[in-house]
Amino acid sequence: MNLTVYLAGQIHDDWREELAKQAEERNLPLTFVGPQTDHDRSDAIGEAILGKQPSAFYRDDAASAVNNFRTEVLMKKADLVIGLFGEKYKQWNTAMDISTAITLNKPTIIVRPESLIHPLKELSNKANVTVETIEQALDVVAYIYE
Amino acid sequence: MNLTVYLAGQIHDDWREELAKQAEERNLPLTFVGPQTDHDRSDAIGEAILGKQPSAFYRDDAASAVNNFRTEVLMKKADLVIGLFGEKYKQWNTAMDISTAITLNKPTIIVRPESLIHPLKELSNKANVTVETIEQALDVVAYIYE
Amino acid sequence: MNLTVYLAGQIHDDWREELAKQAEERNLPLTFVGPQTDHDRSDAIGEAILGKQPSAFYRDDAASAVNNFRTEVLMKKADLVIGLFGEKYKQWNTAMDISTAITLNKPTIIVRPESLIHPLKELSNKANVTVETIEQALDVVAYIYE
Amino acid sequence: MNLTVYLAGQIHDDWREELAKQAEERNLPLTFVGPQTDHDRSDAIGEAILGKQPSAFYRDDAASAVNNFRTEVLMKKADLVIGLFGEKYKQWNTAMDISTAITLNKPTIIVRPESLIHPLKELSNKANVTVETIEQALDVVAYIYE
Amino acid sequence: MNLTVYLAGQIHDDWREELAKQAEERNLPLTFVGPQTDHDRSDAIGEAILGKQPSAFYRDDAASAVNNFRTEVLMKKADLVIGLFGEKYKQWNTAMDISTAITLNKPTIIVRPESLIHPLKELSNKANVTVETIEQALDVVAYIYE
Amino acid sequence: MNLTVYLAGQIHDDWREELAKQAEERNLPLTFVGPQTDHDRSDAIGEAILGKQPSAFYRDDAASAVNNFRTEVLMKKADLVIGLFGEKYKQWNTAMDISTAITLNKPTIIVRPESLIHPLKELSNKANVTVETIEQALDVVAYIYE
Amino acid sequence: MNLTVYLAGQIHDDWREELAKQAEERNLPLTFVGPQTDHDRSDAIGEAILGKQPSAFYRDDAASAVNNFRTEVLMKKADLVIGLFGEKYKQWNTAMDISTAITLNKPTIIVRPESLIHPLKELSNKANVTVETIEQALDVVAYIYE
Amino acid sequence: MNLTVYLAGQIHDDWREELAKQAEERNLPLTFVGPQTDHDRSDAIGEAILGKQPSAFYRDDAASAVNNFRTEVLMKKADLVIGLFGEKYKQWNTAMDISTAITLNKPTIIVRPESLIHPLKELSNKANVTVETIEQALDVVAYIYE
Repeated sequence: MNLTVYLAGQIHDDWREELAKQAEERNLPLTFVGPQTDHDRSDAIGEAILGKQPSAFYRDDAASAVNNFRTEVLMKKADLVIGLFGEKYKQWNTAMDISTAITLNKPTIIVRPESLIHPLKELSNKANVTVETIEQALDVVAYIYE
Repeated sequence: MNLTVYLAGQIHDDWREELAKQAEERNLPLTFVGPQTDHDRSDAIGEAILGKQPSAFYRDDAASAVNNFRTEVLMKKADLVIGLFGEKYKQWNTAMDISTAITLNKPTIIVRPESLIHPLKELSNKANVTVETIEQALDVVAYIYE
Repeated sequence: MNLTVYLAGQIHDDWREELAKQAEERNLPLTFVGPQTDHDRSDAIGEAILGKQPSAFYRDDAASAVNNFRTEVLMKKADLVIGLFGEKYKQWNTAMDISTAITLNKPTIIVRPESLIHPLKELSNKANVTVETIEQALDVVAYIYE
Repeated sequence: MNLTVYLAGQIHDDWREELAKQAEERNLPLTFVGPQTDHDRSDAIGEAILGKQPSAFYRDDAASAVNNFRTEVLMKKADLVIGLFGEKYKQWNTAMDISTAITLNKPTIIVRPESLIHPLKELSNKANVTVETIEQALDVVAYIYE
Repeated sequence: MNLTVYLAGQIHDDWREELAKQAEERNLPLTFVGPQTDHDRSDAIGEAILGKQPSAFYRDDAASAVNNFRTEVLMKKADLVIGLFGEKYKQWNTAMDISTAITLNKPTIIVRPESLIHPLKELSNKANVTVETIEQALDVVAYIYE
Repeated sequence: MNLTVYLAGQIHDDWREELAKQAEERNLPLTFVGPQTDHDRSDAIGEAILGKQPSAFYRDDAASAVNNFRTEVLMKKADLVIGLFGEKYKQWNTAMDISTAITLNKPTIIVRPESLIHPLKELSNKANVTVETIEQALDVVAYIYE
Repeated sequence: MNLTVYLAGQIHDDWREELAKQAEERNLPLTFVGPQTDHDRSDAIGEAILGKQPSAFYRDDAASAVNNFRTEVLMKKADLVIGLFGEKYKQWNTAMDISTAITLNKPTIIVRPESLIHPLKELSNKANVTVETIEQALDVVAYIYE
Repeated sequence: MNLTVYLAGQIHDDWREELAKQAEERNLPLTFVGPQTDHDRSDAIGEAILGKQPSAFYRDDAASAVNNFRTEVLMKKADLVIGLFGEKYKQWNTAMDISTAITLNKPTIIVRPESLIHPLKELSNKANVTVETIEQALDVVAYIYE
């Protein structure tokens, strides 16, 4: 049974590739989808399609529309969601995507470092499982196939 | 027509009281609900009800369960949601509550300072309206009654 | 049994006041809600709240956000929807609101002149009832109380 | 990941074929569905199946029932919707289909010329993205696959 | 706790008045709603509002649109549905209304004579409770208040 | 694009085989599902599985549970529903299945003889299309593929 | 803000009265609803309304239909659910009602003795909050009003 | 037509293997999914992934989170649910899973021994069919393919 996994979260390191590689090593039949991970491309996509906008505010609004379109299409395809928080940045998109997933009744795993226990406590409480590493997240997914 | 408004967002100043006062001055028939705004009480509520927990992690988990219960009951009652972001703290609960509200098709207004335009761009794009002050948020709500 | 009626449609004459007056004459216990009917105010509301926008496009986008917010709040309150098309203007908002209402399973009446039968045929087919005058629309609503 | 795209909008030129051709040139794995594009066939389908109707009104009603049936079946299959407005005709079906798609939470792109910014502003505000050309619409869809 | 009860079913005798009288005698705080019970009015309502139709078929179609509008508005208000089948007539409206109510998760009671056990067996199996008299139907409703 | 069609309706002649044959002759890529068409088997299935029941009433209740289970599984798989009414029998199952399908937003076609126009008028009004022959029903479905 | 609370759970002692008394002492504006708490009446209600059944099995089936009808009507009215497990009996109705409430997104509190932690662990994990006493359950509800 | 079947229920004997073997002997095109059936693994999975917990209570909570995640992913994939109750243990998970399935409108079969008729009567009444053996459960499923 192939499952599609949406990988929400920060796009500042290669955690998605690492997770995908580990999943492949474990022979888990998973298809991964997620946001644009090229940060500059993500910020520029609105102007790339719609042309120059009048200011940073409108540039951001145009980019976010395209990014949200992508996320919406792909999250609908997902059987489950893994959302990773890192120690840096606001990461409100991650919180937004995970909260959307939970409200849509998508089974959801949060990965976050110990240092973020307190600020993420309500979101963790709503997710199915919260872990600290991507190995643990894959352990949870692998358990479906046992 | 009385409307119930859930006030999501930070609990570190008295913006809710200020907003309620202004609403009263404008004679807007609004009922406000929201999270526990006593920060210490909010963090301690799990242990206050369930007793001493084994560590900070479990203390947080117990508190978040009660806080989420409260939010869930009150947000279901809300006709619309106003969520305010400040410049400090992670405010992931605010992002979570607003994203939940949007996914539940609650009409939603975000209030955030100009400095947060970029990190909030995707969430702003999904909300109905984003403004910078609580006066503006009330302007939007007052427009319903014109 | 009081019913709330959303009055979708053009805002270029006083059909809503006329309909409300006739409903009162018939003693129908109806509460009417609807969009902003001051056309200039409707077009200007975005800038009135958010301030001057960089161009007509952004002015329109800001106004539409606030107008959609209002519509969404009020349509949720409606037990039924009456949408009126006139012979002038694009009236895509009317088509949008009626289609939204139908998709949300709100019982819906369309009022349109005979000249619009053909271009409105698919929308009419999806609505519950299509009539040509507001008297007839009220006949349909009054029938609930017989 | 193959995606099914419903192409709502006017049926007076060959924009669907053009869009499909461009999608193929870009190797996008998309399946396109949409309304009957033979305008005469679309208007005549009711009588073609049900026989001669008593007047133009009933002829239109019969045709619209079959057209709506087709749209409903195919839109349920769609992962996303692209709706194109041209400068001519009422195009209320386009507004209806896009509004239905948005209410059903289908990710939606509007294509419209600059001249229609104002009358389409509320619908644009509810769609995910609004662009001016089918190339741009495909840019948005292609972004999902980056 | 006042409950609203939709009384689906045949309109050829005064079972609704009888049921309402008995409910009043038992002091049950129930509000009853239901279809038009004047059979001629029900059949004629389409032409009464829309004017003379080209044939019996179109007369029926016009009437059914208005009747369905009424049913839809009132059934949404209902906390529970009682549907009564008699020994005469097709009563497909009754089957339709009860099936709609069950699919909408409205708690539903069927009242039918013993002679109809067999043809109604699948519908009975889907309803909450099936009884043979309106006294028994009220017994079931009264049990809510014990 | 293969579509699955649930064939609701009477099981007293071979209309399903006839319709399937015609669909094959037209090369329509349709998969047909439907109720048990062996009438005796349908009535006996409860006792066949659960053993002898105390009376005809309980025999019917046991059978209907299994029949409803089958219908529920298969209708969920259906992209559209065709329901056929004949001139004989109560056919309340047909009305029930069609009403369920419509309430679940399944696109639905009714086939019924001219003699049943009046008693089926409200159900016809809620269905997408009503025709008189299975050829016409297939015409409607074939139109999806034009 | 008055809230309606469904009290699911065993009916072998007066915990509902005790809880209601304590709520009153705390001046909590709560309305309590719940199942029939007269155990004999609950078991006999089917035969009381429908008459003597052929065996204990059918007696039970008739009673459960009426009990489920009552539960369904009242749970729909509830803003939140409190479910109490005791140390005796199977209490599958309690598990059923709580699981139904959670699946319907009703905020839910479980009350259970320490001895039942293990067998209830999955259900507890899905509920919002699990406590050991009705005082604690009221603490959770009272927190909404702080 | 391949169907996916979730097998809820006790994990203390090999009824799932037996049922799967019988399904294969009958050539039923079914895919079976279900909970972890290694009881020790199921109880230990939380600590296996998250590490040692402070007490049995937290160990149980951690395990149940992972078990619920698995169940949620797999039940969404299921076309129908078979839930088996045995004579031993609390089996509240079984009641929870079946009640969840019913509330999600999954067609559901309960298998239980005669001795459990009374305590399971309300749950049986809500399920589609209740039988006493896995052979009978497969008879019900096989009937879909007749």
